[in-house]
Amino acid sequence: MRPIMAEPWAFKNAMRRHAASVTLIAVGLPPDRAGLTATSVCSLTAEPPQLLVCLNGNSRTAQRLQEERLFSVNILGDRHRELAERFSSAHAISSEDKFRSGEWSPGPAGTPLLIDAVASFECELASSYPVDTHIILIGRVLNLHAKSDASALIYRDGRYGGWTALSAPAKGAAIEA
Amino acid sequence: MRPIMAEPWAFKNAMRRHAASVTLIAVGLPPDRAGLTATSVCSLTAEPPQLLVCLNGNSRTAQRLQEERLFSVNILGDRHRELAERFSSAHAISSEDKFRSGEWSPGPAGTPLLIDAVASFECELASSYPVDTHIILIGRVLNLHAKSDASALIYRDGRYGGWTALSAPAKGAAIEA
Repeated sequence: MRPIMAEPWAFKNAMRRHAASVTLIAVGLPPDRAGLTATSVCSLTAEPPQLLVCLNGNSRTAQRLQEERLFSVNILGDRHRELAERFSSAHAISSEDKFRSGEWSPGPAGTPLLIDAVASFECELASSYPVDTHIILIGRVLNLHAKSDASALIYRDGRYGGWTALSAPAKGAAIEA
Repeated sequence: MRPIMAEPWAFKNAMRRHAASVTLIAVGLPPDRAGLTATSVCSLTAEPPQLLVCLNGNSRTAQRLQEERLFSVNILGDRHRELAERFSSAHAISSEDKFRSGEWSPGPAGTPLLIDAVASFECELASSYPVDTHIILIGRVLNLHAKSDASALIYRDGRYGGWTALSAPAKGAAIEA
């Protein structure tokens, strides 16, 4: 017997327990950029360096990203809460206007980089997999910028929060992926 | 000119700035279970309820998961640090022995559920995409269990940590995915 599927509302509610770094995905050059706040981002492979982003397939950012095949992933710190709200899909600001907040500069590959992000990655779209309403985008990392910055903006339970170390570095911390 | 790719060590180092919930991915029934600590997990679609897990394709858990096509995702709280270390790939414990710690019980779909997880999902493997060394596994959520539990175990900078809310709920918090 095949078990019944979970209800969407129950799934959304349970996924609120899942915490994730808040990132801004961005594409294009001024005056024609698009960007979105995303938490469904993860590391995929180190060799070659690749990360993965899930976006709603209907979003302007997902569409632009597939046309241009170059995009940036900017990991936010706790000082970036307003920027995260500005770029969230609920905020009715036109694409280019979103970039009026924060200091942005085109990276070597021509994607918008948030200058004071905790880490930024310029990616080339290596492949994409549409799955129902969403699309999984695999980005091959062309170049990156990382700061020695302890701050993190983490979304959980419908709220923004920060991160605090429990204690010493993890033992044999070879966590998967 | 196509820009040069980033170096694997630099990518790994920069991805340390990315924070993520720690989960245990598990498969099988006693006495033949397999499981792994994973942080590359994210929400994919709500309709239908689907999540995504990235695992090293060579891991026993990834192989078992593709055979059985049923697996659980258990989101950990800050009390589960030792369990996270026990299930990490660096820990030389045989598959079934990992489950001697924590309280585990088979769910309705026959996957191992961690009883006091912050949230648990039983998933059916809907599709999978191998990408170089890793494999992206799409799980369709059959059933789930969520607790009203503020605790979170979050991996960042090679350490385990917890989460603290910054302040009020996020404005218009329709974050992507």
